Amino acid sequence: MEKSLKHVSGSVTAPRGFSAAGVFCDIKRLGTGKGSNKGKKRDLALIVSAVPATVAGTFTTNRVCAAPVKVCVQRVKRGWAQAIVVNSGNANACTGQQGLQDALAMAEIAARAVAPLQAKDVLVASTGRIGVTLPMPNVKAGITAAASLLDSAEASAHHAAEAIMTSDTRPKEVAVEFQLGGQTVRLGGICKGAGMIQPGMSQTGARPALHATMLCFITTDAAIGAKALQTALNQAVAQSFNRITVDGDMSTNDTVLVLANGLAKNKTLSKRDLETFQAALNHVTLTLAKKIVLDGEGVSRFVTVRVNGAKTFADADAAARAVANSSLVKTSWFGGDPNWGRILGALGYSAAPVVENKIDVGYSLPGSKKVLFSLKQGRPTKTTFAALCKITAEKAFDLHINLNLGRASTLIYAADLTEAYVDYNKGDVTDPTTLGG
Amino acid sequence: MEKSLKHVSGSVTAPRGFSAAGVFCDIKRLGTGKGSNKGKKRDLALIVSAVPATVAGTFTTNRVCAAPVKVCVQRVKRGWAQAIVVNSGNANACTGQQGLQDALAMAEIAARAVAPLQAKDVLVASTGRIGVTLPMPNVKAGITAAASLLDSAEASAHHAAEAIMTSDTRPKEVAVEFQLGGQTVRLGGICKGAGMIQPGMSQTGARPALHATMLCFITTDAAIGAKALQTALNQAVAQSFNRITVDGDMSTNDTVLVLANGLAKNKTLSKRDLETFQAALNHVTLTLAKKIVLDGEGVSRFVTVRVNGAKTFADADAAARAVANSSLVKTSWFGGDPNWGRILGALGYSAAPVVENKIDVGYSLPGSKKVLFSLKQGRPTKTTFAALCKITAEKAFDLHINLNLGRASTLIYAADLTEAYVDYNKGDVTDPTTLGG
Repeated sequence: MEKSLKHVSGSVTAPRGFSAAGVFCDIKRLGTGKGSNKGKKRDLALIVSAVPATVAGTFTTNRVCAAPVKVCVQRVKRGWAQAIVVNSGNANACTGQQGLQDALAMAEIAARAVAPLQAKDVLVASTGRIGVTLPMPNVKAGITAAASLLDSAEASAHHAAEAIMTSDTRPKEVAVEFQLGGQTVRLGGICKGAGMIQPGMSQTGARPALHATMLCFITTDAAIGAKALQTALNQAVAQSFNRITVDGDMSTNDTVLVLANGLAKNKTLSKRDLETFQAALNHVTLTLAKKIVLDGEGVSRFVTVRVNGAKTFADADAAARAVANSSLVKTSWFGGDPNWGRILGALGYSAAPVVENKIDVGYSLPGSKKVLFSLKQGRPTKTTFAALCKITAEKAFDLHINLNLGRASTLIYAADLTEAYVDYNKGDVTDPTTLGG
Repeated sequence: MEKSLKHVSGSVTAPRGFSAAGVFCDIKRLGTGKGSNKGKKRDLALIVSAVPATVAGTFTTNRVCAAPVKVCVQRVKRGWAQAIVVNSGNANACTGQQGLQDALAMAEIAARAVAPLQAKDVLVASTGRIGVTLPMPNVKAGITAAASLLDSAEASAHHAAEAIMTSDTRPKEVAVEFQLGGQTVRLGGICKGAGMIQPGMSQTGARPALHATMLCFITTDAAIGAKALQTALNQAVAQSFNRITVDGDMSTNDTVLVLANGLAKNKTLSKRDLETFQAALNHVTLTLAKKIVLDGEGVSRFVTVRVNGAKTFADADAAARAVANSSLVKTSWFGGDPNWGRILGALGYSAAPVVENKIDVGYSLPGSKKVLFSLKQGRPTKTTFAALCKITAEKAFDLHINLNLGRASTLIYAADLTEAYVDYNKGDVTDPTTLGG
């Protein structure tokens, strides 16, 4: 973390002029028969800026993308927005024309509830079941309730962070403060993840890239133009959300949105200021992205797969993703096993050209420069199995792969594959509403 | 199955002039301390033809390939061979120069033990742990013992089928008889699979293709030239072993070998005869390939993923593999859940161009023409969830996907992802010999 950044408490309401709320409106339609308050988790969030804000967004490149994604891709292009309405429990994906109408209606209802907004100033996101249309009466009641509770207190942002959760076990929040253009500005965010996590987002939602639903909403009181904000977000997402994988599945709903309302009244940003802003945005997105991996469905270990010595970035990326998504490698991590045979197998079938007798494989504690190599030039080293196991027994460790073929490198933040993941995701035939991711 | 084919008992010794054996020679070096005969599974197999045979082979396209694969790729090019020596318990992969020497030595020892063969007439294959060199004294003792037990009895072929098993729970064998060039000929085979199963083999072991160790050894007494045999094998593998996936991981050792010794003394094969031979080889390879999926690690369901209406075969293949290898889709199958949301998600991130509101998804019992559609043109049908579940509750079912974009189609034989798979493969840090696949 940059020295110039300071963590502050709270998240999306830490910057000036933002309010939030999170409520329960029964989007899963639990009904009242179940009688318990336990299932009544918040499922609708509102985030609102007191004044119009510049906006930037990145979206799933999945060709099957949800209705709210289609709406946001268009609205973000305008460069201005003022509110975000989000529901969990229903992804509003694969819901056809009705889904699109519902997404637009969510924005419309929110605009009226938070008057004097216009519908086009409201962005919308959803996560949850695929293929089921939204229960709009419940959604409307939820938006109305949330609007009446909008507040800039930390607790309200926390309620919003809770309301966007699905299989997440905890809310994910962060906020930082830094100097920018002569003023103290703040940048805060919330996100959710858990399963269907290997985002591959782009600005347009089109398909230049690779492969959760992961949702992330970021606010800042910095004054920054929409174009500069989008450029900064593209870079921030490239080094954070687009570098994580839990299960290799890319969602239909992945969305990151940033609102910058300018209430810090900083001067026009110099090149150096833009770098400062970038560093802050990188830090916030990376912190949130790592929280998603750590809280992935059934995840017991966080592994940073570092690939060096590739000929091209594309090769490094292909090699890292093959290892990070191999079921056999991931199950070996679950057991805390420094298995290099499976790693070599995955490298060998990746799209990257690799040469067996050039490959180095090593382990370190996160961030440590002391790497213990199990393999050098394709051959086992004299490092003892026990010494390697001591590292891989940790909750988090770094895997170092050097292809020794070139100078390109990358990393992927990955998770193990556990029985808990399978148990969580195995189909439930007693409940047709489990359709979807 | 073609009417002209008849199943006969036995496997690799069903054709004239073939003998086999399978013995225990402690390749995993269990030692004697464990005291139990339980661990003493056969681990070395020999298959020998009484006369020189034409040969064909396909091999893993993994860039990290095992020493025996390197040896076989060269030897198969000669067009002639007479014996195959195979060990389980050690893959002889990632074993460097020593590994290559050991693979050559295995052939040399076998040639001497089955005199009067030359080393170059012997093909070699291995499966098991990666990165550990072979215990050559044990291997030598095993080959010598196996050579002394060579026999054309069904029991001997069965011992060979047992000896090539790793995590397989049962040996896999098949044999057929048919008329060819005026004579009755036989074709028999054995194979093993279980994990690291998504073969992508080619004749040269080079890399034109995609992605177990799966090993398969086929014998026939048909008289067929090496070139015609290779052409037939390429086609047979393309519709069988290269269409299966258990966990999406491609092994360093995948090998299919066919020996044709001509002892049936059929006439030179006409074009029609070649078609007959092809049909028999297709049947034998597909039967064995399906046995691999059904006996995959922890597998509880066998799903045939059928993709129709793609623009190109490559699109159909990419779509089918994305669905067949999605952790979320596979865990839903484990629960017997006809979840179409996850299927649409996987199709959307596959390399195939798909259009959400054109996609049909349906289910049928294997081979049945009665398909129940859950989705038509991207929208849920009125078919009840209970009706769909009745099909997906079965041990085997077919998933029908129509992209409705073109005329290309394909299928993949796939398996579910279960807690048993994770449990079996999770690393064992108490035993450094679990390295590898």
